[in-house]
Amino acid sequence: MVQKVYVTYNDVHKLCKESAPRILDEFKPELIIAIGGGGYIPARILRSFLKQPNGKNISIQAIGLSLYENLGTGEPEETPGTEVVRLQWLDILTKASTSSTEAISHLIGKNILIVDEVDDTRTTLQYAVQELEKDVAEQSQKLGRSEKTNFSIFVLHNKDKEKRGTLPEEIVNSRYLAARTTTDVWLCYPWEAVDIEEHDRLAAQQGENSV
Amino acid sequence: MVQKVYVTYNDVHKLCKESAPRILDEFKPELIIAIGGGGYIPARILRSFLKQPNGKNISIQAIGLSLYENLGTGEPEETPGTEVVRLQWLDILTKASTSSTEAISHLIGKNILIVDEVDDTRTTLQYAVQELEKDVAEQSQKLGRSEKTNFSIFVLHNKDKEKRGTLPEEIVNSRYLAARTTTDVWLCYPWEAVDIEEHDRLAAQQGENSV
Repeated sequence: MVQKVYVTYNDVHKLCKESAPRILDEFKPELIIAIGGGGYIPARILRSFLKQPNGKNISIQAIGLSLYENLGTGEPEETPGTEVVRLQWLDILTKASTSSTEAISHLIGKNILIVDEVDDTRTTLQYAVQELEKDVAEQSQKLGRSEKTNFSIFVLHNKDKEKRGTLPEEIVNSRYLAARTTTDVWLCYPWEAVDIEEHDRLAAQQGENSV
Repeated sequence: MVQKVYVTYNDVHKLCKESAPRILDEFKPELIIAIGGGGYIPARILRSFLKQPNGKNISIQAIGLSLYENLGTGEPEETPGTEVVRLQWLDILTKASTSSTEAISHLIGKNILIVDEVDDTRTTLQYAVQELEKDVAEQSQKLGRSEKTNFSIFVLHNKDKEKRGTLPEEIVNSRYLAARTTTDVWLCYPWEAVDIEEHDRLAAQQGENSV
């Protein structure tokens, strides 16, 4: 039986808050890509703490990825899937460009922060980085542009376990931040809770075993 | 001075939970479109309560819309803007279709739930409904399809005030749900809070003035 660890909304909020200075300092993100569904909530919270000195928000773009075996079960911790399915990809629009064909070109030369809730088997993150890097490389070549695009990663939790997916060394070594590293526990996020007060009680009870 | 009303994460969670049965019963959504950034968090929470009997999740697609005047200030309640800017539009992909040109066609004939955090001036919601209906109509004609597509709306809060934007009668009368209706207060959502514990204290203090 896998140990369950309960994470409250305020835990998530504080993990984003405490991680923000390092993200700003080291990754200097100009765009957030949230991996949905799990990345939506941390990405939106994190954005509040990444506000620029001029008061501007960093834009969030969402991509939808799901691990096929548990597409829809909502309990990825139990049986992590192996095949990533795209549910939504990028379609970045600016005031000047209302055509989606330019979507990827807006990534070129930017510092881009990919946000998800958990790095479990790393399969989804590998897929996201690989596909985004591929799209950017293709567009760069097509447009004759050579600026370096830097992807960085933020997750609330990284499970310290053998990973199925791999990430580029450069990201692992210097552009990867997990607010907490855990053992291979079952992380119960608040947005999955049916009874949020019971969830909070269980979180409070776990005391020093919390993450 | 506009009255501030503090909304906690657990308030948001419970508003989604209590609204879910009516949404399932009356709107029968097959797809959620979250208006980002404010719609990301309620959309993700709501999805947990809209799980189908077969255990399948409803897919969330994100669109990014911002009111131009406050693009980036993060305080829409103070000075609502008037011009809507698209930051991200739909790019729905299925396993079978990896081309984004088919994105809109997946909406045809579906019950689609549009989710945002607040209906303030209604400008953003009008834009979202108008543009989605236009895209669907264009694609339906192109593909020779005649199924009816039904858009419904869920927001956490509707401000009872004169609206700048308008919605189709059909939606207003039978496919619009606001978990709470408020006066023209300043709604402080938790994801904007710097100090979440102070935010929760202020929420607790407001007692019966809460929403």
